[in-house]
Amino acid sequence: MFTLPQKESRKPTTCPGSVSTRGLHSIYGDGLEREAARKPDQKLLYGVGDPTAMFSSDSPHLSSRGSIIKWFWDSAEEGYRTYHMDEYDEDRNPGGIINLGTSENKLCFDLLSRRRPRSCVDVGDSAGPHCEGILREEVASFLSFYCKSPAPLKPENVVVLNGCASLFSALATVLCEVGEAFLIPAPYYGAITQHVYLYGNVRLVCVYLDSEVTGLETHPFQLTVDKLEMALQGAISEGVKVKGLILINPQNPLGDIYSPGELREYLEFAKRHALHVMVDEVYMLSVFEESVGYRSVLSLEGLPDPQKTHVMWATSKDFGMSGLRFGTLYTENQDVATAVASLCRYHGLSGFVQYQMAQLLRDRDWINQVYLPENHARLKAAHTYVSEELRALGVPFLSHGAGFFIWVDLRKFLPEATFEEERLLWRRFLENKVLLSFGKAFECKEPGWFRLVFSDKAHRLRLGMQRIRQVLEGKSQVAEDPPSCQTQEPRGPHR
Amino acid sequence: MFTLPQKESRKPTTCPGSVSTRGLHSIYGDGLEREAARKPDQKLLYGVGDPTAMFSSDSPHLSSRGSIIKWFWDSAEEGYRTYHMDEYDEDRNPGGIINLGTSENKLCFDLLSRRRPRSCVDVGDSAGPHCEGILREEVASFLSFYCKSPAPLKPENVVVLNGCASLFSALATVLCEVGEAFLIPAPYYGAITQHVYLYGNVRLVCVYLDSEVTGLETHPFQLTVDKLEMALQGAISEGVKVKGLILINPQNPLGDIYSPGELREYLEFAKRHALHVMVDEVYMLSVFEESVGYRSVLSLEGLPDPQKTHVMWATSKDFGMSGLRFGTLYTENQDVATAVASLCRYHGLSGFVQYQMAQLLRDRDWINQVYLPENHARLKAAHTYVSEELRALGVPFLSHGAGFFIWVDLRKFLPEATFEEERLLWRRFLENKVLLSFGKAFECKEPGWFRLVFSDKAHRLRLGMQRIRQVLEGKSQVAEDPPSCQTQEPRGPHR
Repeated sequence: MFTLPQKESRKPTTCPGSVSTRGLHSIYGDGLEREAARKPDQKLLYGVGDPTAMFSSDSPHLSSRGSIIKWFWDSAEEGYRTYHMDEYDEDRNPGGIINLGTSENKLCFDLLSRRRPRSCVDVGDSAGPHCEGILREEVASFLSFYCKSPAPLKPENVVVLNGCASLFSALATVLCEVGEAFLIPAPYYGAITQHVYLYGNVRLVCVYLDSEVTGLETHPFQLTVDKLEMALQGAISEGVKVKGLILINPQNPLGDIYSPGELREYLEFAKRHALHVMVDEVYMLSVFEESVGYRSVLSLEGLPDPQKTHVMWATSKDFGMSGLRFGTLYTENQDVATAVASLCRYHGLSGFVQYQMAQLLRDRDWINQVYLPENHARLKAAHTYVSEELRALGVPFLSHGAGFFIWVDLRKFLPEATFEEERLLWRRFLENKVLLSFGKAFECKEPGWFRLVFSDKAHRLRLGMQRIRQVLEGKSQVAEDPPSCQTQEPRGPHR
Repeated sequence: MFTLPQKESRKPTTCPGSVSTRGLHSIYGDGLEREAARKPDQKLLYGVGDPTAMFSSDSPHLSSRGSIIKWFWDSAEEGYRTYHMDEYDEDRNPGGIINLGTSENKLCFDLLSRRRPRSCVDVGDSAGPHCEGILREEVASFLSFYCKSPAPLKPENVVVLNGCASLFSALATVLCEVGEAFLIPAPYYGAITQHVYLYGNVRLVCVYLDSEVTGLETHPFQLTVDKLEMALQGAISEGVKVKGLILINPQNPLGDIYSPGELREYLEFAKRHALHVMVDEVYMLSVFEESVGYRSVLSLEGLPDPQKTHVMWATSKDFGMSGLRFGTLYTENQDVATAVASLCRYHGLSGFVQYQMAQLLRDRDWINQVYLPENHARLKAAHTYVSEELRALGVPFLSHGAGFFIWVDLRKFLPEATFEEERLLWRRFLENKVLLSFGKAFECKEPGWFRLVFSDKAHRLRLGMQRIRQVLEGKSQVAEDPPSCQTQEPRGPHR
């Protein structure tokens, strides 16, 4: 038994003390001491402080919690940063630092190595900077090439997490206070709502688009700066603080592509209002019609506000690897990059996923000569088939040669223009064994739009389209009450 | 160009409207409609509602945000649940559901398969239930065996995320409202502070332990129910709402092991106060002294409150795979399991990590006959070496035959008993090229304790101990002001 002569009064004290609503607790101890040294006039109780007061000025780009997240990271990393700059190595750096601080079992790597898939780290598997460094270089090089950036993109501006869902969650949290909001043109990929809300408590302000065409040079569901301005002013008038704008390009579910001119207008709008812009380019390499002239925002010369422009990409769509969990953020804003990266404990990806991804991304020959041409040809063929089927059915739709889906107008098949009827039609499809997504899931304002995914094998598409036809023609087994308008002509040409 | 005759007034409305501080926004649309149908007396503006009011009664175990998280999941999954119960398969289920709803490119799996590591899913890589189901069975079987559960553990009680950091983050969020707290005996693994706070805004109330020994049957840093009670009452008196208790067993950094009797006392305490208990057993298989008689909480017959007992394990420590990102939660509470699992979009692990882990966990022969005996023998040898070195140095320490670290008492090497001196000593170690962790990082109340990790190769340990000795004996190159007490005798026997 280990006994100690020293006697100390024992006080099972609570750490937090009486804290403000955003207050932290005593683990700030060490940091508080340093902070106190820096700001001697600031009153600090033991282990109790108001981090918002301490950190709000850390970065003009981060929310108070973003600053706290970054600060936690920075302050905890002192020893490890020093270590990683001067790691001990028996041969190469015998005078380097021996790490007896990280609780990691280095004794059985030999036994484990034959059981573990290859990883880019030789010793251990800790989510260290080694692997990530290599991967960030590969991502920067990959994005430079495929986004056609005017100058090479920089590895230090790259953050890698386990998918775009996590990137949205992290960005919302480090950019916004609780209850603040992002603008988003609707219809939009509905899961983003949860991504920014569930952890971040950030809301979305919809910029509602509709199918009405108002002029010669316009198209259905067109996003304009006027609509952005109106939505922003509407939010402000309702007391909602808007911190950013989310753009999806190619758009999901519309399949829209923003022209460089449009992109620049939206970015200028954001700059005028000091908004961050998060550009989700997750379908960037799934543009199968060359003629649509897709341009990544990273291809633009002289971004209006590069410190507030954050670009996301992932392998989920372009490489059919949604289960792989791999998403990248590109931002020139180092505060944002650090704050988002420091959440990697919660959104980290396995060392060997990092390794595999680095291998894949650098295989430019295979991607350019085998994968992309074949992938685009197959997407185009599937798209052509489904388009023709829809035309034969007399169903209007929107499609622009990008993405995996067609935005289908089934409004005439609804007895009434309600979301309840939309859901009933959706359920009839499901009962007839074909699953689609209804427009309400994308926050579409007009009931009756559906997203139809065509990126599937021919025999499944054929069967799926047959089953859709059965429902629309009232011939499915389950359709008790076939919609009355089923024989109407389509209301416009297809695109 | 696609034109539509139907004209509709265009209103770029903001979704959120005037919401409560915890209010959600219009993406609740569909859900709100259903909720409204269920509760016709509840006043609802378009797209605006108070989800706390709607969900608070969903589960007595979940916080309002936990209920929201679970509800989002449940409601979004309707179509996919139906689909997964009746998936189309050309041969086995040609009458099954064709999925044209999930935006996934199934056209190039043949091209990608040769480039992708093996995964347990044949087609696609979506984070679906297939892989996870197999893995959960393996985890349940693995934990049943190694935790020596009285009855087989059930796969449906298993949740897998990318590590314990994520599990803490998710549990904090689904169990607590913003600002609520968990009790934790201190010193403790300091990163937990961030895990529960950064996303969850949950605080820790420390149950401070100290080195004083108060009686024959006691030991230093002993956790008692009295101390738990005092800390809880202290927190309550300060207006802090405590929702749970975190136990780490084997403890980090103390290396302590709770006896079955102690465990049961702590669990009974928690039950009396309706507290959830999160038991972190991440060093469960790293108990290298058989004689200490480690028992997992899952080995206990008749847990006092199984619905509030949540057990965590990971491969990071026991299989030296911290970079692999693999953590498991075992809980009989299905609300908690679902809510935590539904955050998998942010904490998901790659499909092929799931595959690899299932392979590893089922290889009971290798684990039992090769890995664990050798791992324990090596840990023991390394521990013996470092213990002897510390004794030779006259340094008291605590160590109980579990974990990778020794809790070292360097108080006598501090000129003054302050955390500033502790940090200065830590920096002298670092400047002499050896990295340790200081006690303040574990929220230890007594300055001068350090955690020394011994699970490293012999030559690095030797060098590390030499460098520690140099600093303590004032012989390092950098020690400008060697502590005056360096020649003192140790204050007690070692353990």
